[in-house]
Amino acid sequence: MLADSAAAQRIIELREQVYLANMALQTHNLVTFTWGNVSGIDRELGLVAIKPSGVEYAKLSPANMVILNLAGKVIEGDLKPSSDTSTHLVLYRSYEDIGGVVHTHSPFACAWAQAGLSIPALGTTHADYFYGDIPCTRALTEAEVATNYELNTGLVIEETLGSTEPLSMPGIVVKEHGPFTWGTSPDNAVHNAVVLEEVAKMALHTKQLNPQVTSLNQALLDKHYLRKHGKDAYYGQED
Amino acid sequence: MLADSAAAQRIIELREQVYLANMALQTHNLVTFTWGNVSGIDRELGLVAIKPSGVEYAKLSPANMVILNLAGKVIEGDLKPSSDTSTHLVLYRSYEDIGGVVHTHSPFACAWAQAGLSIPALGTTHADYFYGDIPCTRALTEAEVATNYELNTGLVIEETLGSTEPLSMPGIVVKEHGPFTWGTSPDNAVHNAVVLEEVAKMALHTKQLNPQVTSLNQALLDKHYLRKHGKDAYYGQED
Amino acid sequence: MLADSAAAQRIIELREQVYLANMALQTHNLVTFTWGNVSGIDRELGLVAIKPSGVEYAKLSPANMVILNLAGKVIEGDLKPSSDTSTHLVLYRSYEDIGGVVHTHSPFACAWAQAGLSIPALGTTHADYFYGDIPCTRALTEAEVATNYELNTGLVIEETLGSTEPLSMPGIVVKEHGPFTWGTSPDNAVHNAVVLEEVAKMALHTKQLNPQVTSLNQALLDKHYLRKHGKDAYYGQED
Amino acid sequence: MLADSAAAQRIIELREQVYLANMALQTHNLVTFTWGNVSGIDRELGLVAIKPSGVEYAKLSPANMVILNLAGKVIEGDLKPSSDTSTHLVLYRSYEDIGGVVHTHSPFACAWAQAGLSIPALGTTHADYFYGDIPCTRALTEAEVATNYELNTGLVIEETLGSTEPLSMPGIVVKEHGPFTWGTSPDNAVHNAVVLEEVAKMALHTKQLNPQVTSLNQALLDKHYLRKHGKDAYYGQED
Repeated sequence: MLADSAAAQRIIELREQVYLANMALQTHNLVTFTWGNVSGIDRELGLVAIKPSGVEYAKLSPANMVILNLAGKVIEGDLKPSSDTSTHLVLYRSYEDIGGVVHTHSPFACAWAQAGLSIPALGTTHADYFYGDIPCTRALTEAEVATNYELNTGLVIEETLGSTEPLSMPGIVVKEHGPFTWGTSPDNAVHNAVVLEEVAKMALHTKQLNPQVTSLNQALLDKHYLRKHGKDAYYGQED
Repeated sequence: MLADSAAAQRIIELREQVYLANMALQTHNLVTFTWGNVSGIDRELGLVAIKPSGVEYAKLSPANMVILNLAGKVIEGDLKPSSDTSTHLVLYRSYEDIGGVVHTHSPFACAWAQAGLSIPALGTTHADYFYGDIPCTRALTEAEVATNYELNTGLVIEETLGSTEPLSMPGIVVKEHGPFTWGTSPDNAVHNAVVLEEVAKMALHTKQLNPQVTSLNQALLDKHYLRKHGKDAYYGQED
Repeated sequence: MLADSAAAQRIIELREQVYLANMALQTHNLVTFTWGNVSGIDRELGLVAIKPSGVEYAKLSPANMVILNLAGKVIEGDLKPSSDTSTHLVLYRSYEDIGGVVHTHSPFACAWAQAGLSIPALGTTHADYFYGDIPCTRALTEAEVATNYELNTGLVIEETLGSTEPLSMPGIVVKEHGPFTWGTSPDNAVHNAVVLEEVAKMALHTKQLNPQVTSLNQALLDKHYLRKHGKDAYYGQED
Repeated sequence: MLADSAAAQRIIELREQVYLANMALQTHNLVTFTWGNVSGIDRELGLVAIKPSGVEYAKLSPANMVILNLAGKVIEGDLKPSSDTSTHLVLYRSYEDIGGVVHTHSPFACAWAQAGLSIPALGTTHADYFYGDIPCTRALTEAEVATNYELNTGLVIEETLGSTEPLSMPGIVVKEHGPFTWGTSPDNAVHNAVVLEEVAKMALHTKQLNPQVTSLNQALLDKHYLRKHGKDAYYGQED
């Protein structure tokens, strides 16, 4: 299937990246048992690597990451890919700028998802990464659950994001389910998953202290988001 | 008592399994001091292994697990079995499919037990393991507390489960007390104890965000429970 | 001061015991910085060992525990004893059965102390150790704060306990301050400090789930307390 | 720029101190990723050392701390200083007694900042370090956000502290942002950051238990603050 050794080398690198990003979910305490998955894409090859379904973290290796094309056909690997693979693929097909996708059941993000509420942008921690409230999707209909459930999960994410630029809102909570995040790479998507959980925790505690609190004003949101992102960013070192 | 070396070998394996499952309670941060116990059963021999009462985790070994028959008679071991042994034995006698039982005082599950409330199925994390709300038993009567308390604890669990298939609802919270879980093996029962604590935590936070939240609709509950369990399951690798 | 080598040997043992109990506070995550202290008493010698004031845990050793008599006179040691020493000494003078005292600022117990509320006995985890609600003292008067503050802290603990047998209620929260616990030994007092923090956490979460919840009925309280304590106890192994 | 080897030696020591204080933020679990920064000042040299912007903790070293003068000019170092540098410099210019400044996004402190509420002095844990309620600043105006944002953050801290002696109130929460703390040295400022997070957590839980709770009376506040600080302090060992 793969024409040449350059492609083979790129797949090795993709496997390694996706493997490390999956292991990082555990290091960051985002997963219980096998409740999380990370994928990554090589846009040039049009191939995605993803964690196999239900395999313990201790047994993961670069070699058992599953390689699929964007249509969901397994290209390399004997194991079944994550049961959430179809959701990841919808996002890769729709959002050309993203390089990695993460799904977890991290507890504070799940609390917002289960409550059916968007996570309001209440402070600069949030604004540094997410350019506005992190939306919560609608519930899937009975029909959407019954047939192509994981695909429909991806479609409802898209429907909710609408015209929002995906890298300015690199995560969402799916109602009654949990968070999905994405980013420029598998590692960046994991980074965003950590941040989403942290801001979900802060927002819960903020609401407990002040139930009437409202989202940040636009000026402070702009300031923090844009000092880290975009052409005038001045946070961090020059690349 | 034991007729042959095959039986002796099976008991050695049962001791090992139950010992490791008890130690796993600690690894998963479910226990303070000695506040937890795991048992396992060898159905062919009709023998149960259980943690000795009040012994520190650091002093446990496969050798000091206590072996009893289903009537509660100690077959091997010098130590007294867990004070909760009678509860475990009721469950083994009533539910032929279960292979392990766990009791802990994990804090979020205890909060629900102390509040006297069932843990509602609010999301897919819950639905992946528990096919509906995790019930809370009624309080024991004064008479049930006074005589055969631990046996009656088992009976009120049974009364609460009613006709529910025990492996589809592999745990419960006993009012004013704490969680019991079970599973196909001691290890699987520990797995379910970890999940119960995690969903108890998520459900508490969800209620804080949205006090009016209600249990999942049946379609999503079915989808998640059945994609992991039952004949059409497609999560994880083929066995 | 010390008549013979037997006494000297007992002091060495007391130092060691109290040192280890102080270190255990840290192992059990009950202290931030130096915010805790443990003492122990040798009733035959009438001597108390206590942590020195404001010394980091990493710099503690059996040798730098301070030895005092019950009147508060330092018998051995160059360092100043804990600033809470007078509180400990009141308790040793009044309660002849106790062998160790602990003070911490563990966060959930402090929350109850700051709220000015007793910790209700809401479940068996509590009843296994504390025979009823864990009382919260009244606030000290301005005069009690101004003069002999630490002594008066001990006196208000006594006033609150009243005729309660101290080993059946081995802890208390001092209003606007934090928990004190005691036990048969320094180690047992630390054990009770761990339990108090755990039940304080569970009780907070229980109240959040069910603000109307009330303390356990007497029958279940008796059952759990008495199966671990007193002449008919059957938890744990025979001594 | 630096006249002699004594000055060079002092800068080496300042770098080391500030490096260790930055690493301590991580040890005390106050930071996620790079979300925190510590600076320190050598008053004799008039030079400040601060963490570089957006560099991972694992890659920090004494050598990559950035050295600036009080006007914000970089004196040594190839990396850009923390994006919050201007805020630190305002505080050093205004408060001559402080030797270190810390900024974090520690979650409980951020919850109070996001709620726009001062952290009330509810108990002795708080009173041991902060002589009164820890204030929350007003929000910055749109103009203050648009131009010289980090400088204005420092100015609003000053405005809020007013005539308060900064070492008697060694921290604040900036509305919709998070905590800043300071102290006699970088290490002491980190110490105060740990305490602020701990009292923020306790105060949240206290409010949940008793929404009507009010700040400590002055007598107890004085007693605890002054037994640790000021000329009649008797906590800890003699210096």
